[in-house]
Amino acid sequence: MRTTVGIIGGGPSGLLLARLLHRNGIDSVVLESRDRAYVEQRQRAGILEQATVDALRTAGAADRLDAEGIPHDGIELRHDGRATRIDFPGLTGGRRVWVYAQTEVVKDLVALQLADGGPLRFEAEVTAVEGADTDRPRVHYTHEGRTRILDCDYVVGCDGYHGVTRHAVPEHLRRTHERTYPYSWLGILADAPPVYDELIYAHSERGFALASMRSPAVSRLYLQVPNGTDPADWPDERIWDELDARLSLRAEPGWRLTRGPVTQKAVLPMRSSVTEPMRHGRVFLAGDAAHIVPPTGAKGLNLAAADVVVLARAFAHHHATGSTELLDAYSDTCLRRVWRAEHFSYFMTTTLHTDPAQESFDTRLQLSQLDRIAGSRHAAAELAENYTGLPLDL
Amino acid sequence: MRTTVGIIGGGPSGLLLARLLHRNGIDSVVLESRDRAYVEQRQRAGILEQATVDALRTAGAADRLDAEGIPHDGIELRHDGRATRIDFPGLTGGRRVWVYAQTEVVKDLVALQLADGGPLRFEAEVTAVEGADTDRPRVHYTHEGRTRILDCDYVVGCDGYHGVTRHAVPEHLRRTHERTYPYSWLGILADAPPVYDELIYAHSERGFALASMRSPAVSRLYLQVPNGTDPADWPDERIWDELDARLSLRAEPGWRLTRGPVTQKAVLPMRSSVTEPMRHGRVFLAGDAAHIVPPTGAKGLNLAAADVVVLARAFAHHHATGSTELLDAYSDTCLRRVWRAEHFSYFMTTTLHTDPAQESFDTRLQLSQLDRIAGSRHAAAELAENYTGLPLDL
Repeated sequence: MRTTVGIIGGGPSGLLLARLLHRNGIDSVVLESRDRAYVEQRQRAGILEQATVDALRTAGAADRLDAEGIPHDGIELRHDGRATRIDFPGLTGGRRVWVYAQTEVVKDLVALQLADGGPLRFEAEVTAVEGADTDRPRVHYTHEGRTRILDCDYVVGCDGYHGVTRHAVPEHLRRTHERTYPYSWLGILADAPPVYDELIYAHSERGFALASMRSPAVSRLYLQVPNGTDPADWPDERIWDELDARLSLRAEPGWRLTRGPVTQKAVLPMRSSVTEPMRHGRVFLAGDAAHIVPPTGAKGLNLAAADVVVLARAFAHHHATGSTELLDAYSDTCLRRVWRAEHFSYFMTTTLHTDPAQESFDTRLQLSQLDRIAGSRHAAAELAENYTGLPLDL
Repeated sequence: MRTTVGIIGGGPSGLLLARLLHRNGIDSVVLESRDRAYVEQRQRAGILEQATVDALRTAGAADRLDAEGIPHDGIELRHDGRATRIDFPGLTGGRRVWVYAQTEVVKDLVALQLADGGPLRFEAEVTAVEGADTDRPRVHYTHEGRTRILDCDYVVGCDGYHGVTRHAVPEHLRRTHERTYPYSWLGILADAPPVYDELIYAHSERGFALASMRSPAVSRLYLQVPNGTDPADWPDERIWDELDARLSLRAEPGWRLTRGPVTQKAVLPMRSSVTEPMRHGRVFLAGDAAHIVPPTGAKGLNLAAADVVVLARAFAHHHATGSTELLDAYSDTCLRRVWRAEHFSYFMTTTLHTDPAQESFDTRLQLSQLDRIAGSRHAAAELAENYTGLPLDL
C-alpha cells in the first residue's frame, strides 16, 4: 500500500491531522496499534483551548463539541484557605476554554474518518519506520496477523511517548530534555455533580487537589499522591475526605463536596519531556511523540492539536505550491510554543504541588507567588494568557 | 543613658530610622559596632526604588542624591545572544529607579545625624538585648572600653544578619526560612566608563553576568563564580575576558567592554533568609536583621528602607495618639512585602544563573521564561513592577 502521508497513531493528533489533510485533498493512512473501543475509552485530558476548538471546527468535527462542550470563563485558585477567581476573558481580551473530554474528541474524529476518510486501521502495530532520509520513507507494521509495508511520501509519528517513530530520527541527532516529579495524581471519575461550575486548583500543605468535571452529572477529581501509590490504598471515603480537606476554605469551615459513586480510579505519573528536533528528513513527530507535559497546565492535548495544525498547513502549502518552506520550519515553529507550554506546565505544577523534600522557604515562595496572582493584574493575566493558549504562530 | 527608641546598627536602615523619628520629635540613640570610616566605605547595593528615594527626601537626606543620583528608566536583559530592554515607566505607569551607592546614602545620613540628631555612637558593640517582654527593654553594650546600659521604651535591631538583636525573640517563637545558592558573585569596581547607560543582566551558559555602574567614570561589574572562589584566581584580564564572553551579543561579534584599572575585587555569597516574626514585645527587627535576599533583584537596601518607613510611621502614630495598632501590625505589614521581594529575588536569581547541577531541561525553561519576558507585555510588566518596587502598603 502507498499513501502521501503515513500517520502512525490514531489518537486525537493523528486523527485530527488525517481530517485536516483530507480537507486539503491530501490522502493519508492512519495506523493505530489498539482497537477502536480502547482508543475511544482512554481517559485523558478534558480542556480545549480556543485554537483547538477552531481546529476541530475546521476539520468538521465540532458538531457535538459545540452542542455539549462546556465553556469555562475562568478557573478558581485556592491557597491559604482563600479562593481567587481568574477571569479569562477579562484578562485576555475575550479568550476562554472548553470542557470536552478527549474520549469524545476521539469518538467524533473516528466516526468522521470511517465515514469518508482514508484508511484508518486499528490493531495495526508499527514495528519500524525506515528511510527518513530518502524520498520514500517506509512503515513496517503487522495487521491481521501479517507483516505489511506502507510506502509514503511523508511519515508523521503521532504515536505517543512510547511510540516507535521517534527512533527514525538518528540517535546522534536527537536530544531529549526530561524532568520527572516526586508525586503523581490519583484521578477519579464520580457520578456526582461538580462542586463548582469551573475548575478549582488548590494548593494545600496536604498536597495539591483539582476539582474538574466531565459533564453536569460527572465529576473528575484529582489528588496529589506519592509516586508508586496503589489506588487500592485509597478507598472511596478516604478520597472524598482528603478532597474535602484540601479544597476547604477558611470562610466556609463545614464545606464538603457532594459525594457519589466512584466509577474509575487510576494513578497518573507526572513527567515533562521534549525531544528535539521534531522532524528528520521526511519523518515528523507530533504531540506526545515529541513532548510530554504534566497535566497541571491542561496543555497536552492542545499542544498536540497545535502541532498537527501547523503540519497540515505546511503540507497544504507544499501541495499547492511545491515549496517545502513550511515543512522545513515545522520543528522550530512548534518548539517555540512547546517550550512556552513546558514552562507554564512546570510553573503550575511546582507552584501548586508540595514536593516531599520541600522546605518552609519553598512553601512561602509558593504562597507569595499565589498571593501575587491573586493581587496583581499582570501576574493573573500571565496565567490566563498561558492557560487559554498561545497563538499558533507564537 | 535612656532613650525612647534604641537603634542597634548604624547602617542605612538604622540611620534612616533615626532621621525619620527625629523629624517626628521622637528621640533615639544609635549604637554602631564599627567605626565611621568602615561604615561609610562598606560596598553594598546601588539601586534605589522610588519609595526609598521618597523616604530619603522625607528624612531630609536627599540633596546629594537628587544632584548626583542617576535615574534609570529600565534594564537590559541579555539571553541567547539577544538583548531586550525592559521599559520601566512604560510598563509601570511611570516608575523608575536611581543608581546611588549605599556608601553615599550612609555618608549623607551620618553627616545629618551628627549635625543635629540624637546620639550616634560608633564602636559601640551591643552584647545583649533583654526585657523584650517588659515595658523597659535594655541594651547592654561596650563603648570606649566600658560596659554600658541603654534603657529604652523600644529597641529596633538594624544590626544585620549576624546581629544580636534577633536573639531577643525567644527561640521557640522564632522561625527562620532559608536558602543558600550553589554560586557566588565576584564583584569588581573599575575605573572604566559603564558599557551602557542602564544595567545589563545577562544569562549565559557560562554563568550570569551583571554590568552596573557607580558613576559615569566607575563601573560595577559582577560575574557568577563557584562558591569558595578565591578572588586571587581571577586576575583582571581573566575577569574582563569572561565579562566580554558572557555579555556578548550575536549581532555584535567583536563587541568588548572598555577596560580600566580594577580598584576593588571581592566574592559575595548568595543567600535568602527570612526570620519571623519581625517583632517580639518591644523589640523590632528591620532590614538584614530580619531578612536577606540575593542581590540579583536589587531589593536588600530597599526592603530595609521600607521596613523603617513602616516602623517610623507606627512610632509616630503611637506618639501622636497613644495607639499601638500600627506597632502591633508591623511584622505582618512588612512580611507581606518581604515575601514578595524574596520571591522576586529568587525568581531573578534562579532564572539568570546557571546552577552547576542544572540539566538541559532547566536551561530550556530559563530561556523560555526569558523569551516570554522579551515577548509578552504582562511578563515584562510583572518584572518591571517588582523591580521598581511594590507599594509600602502592599
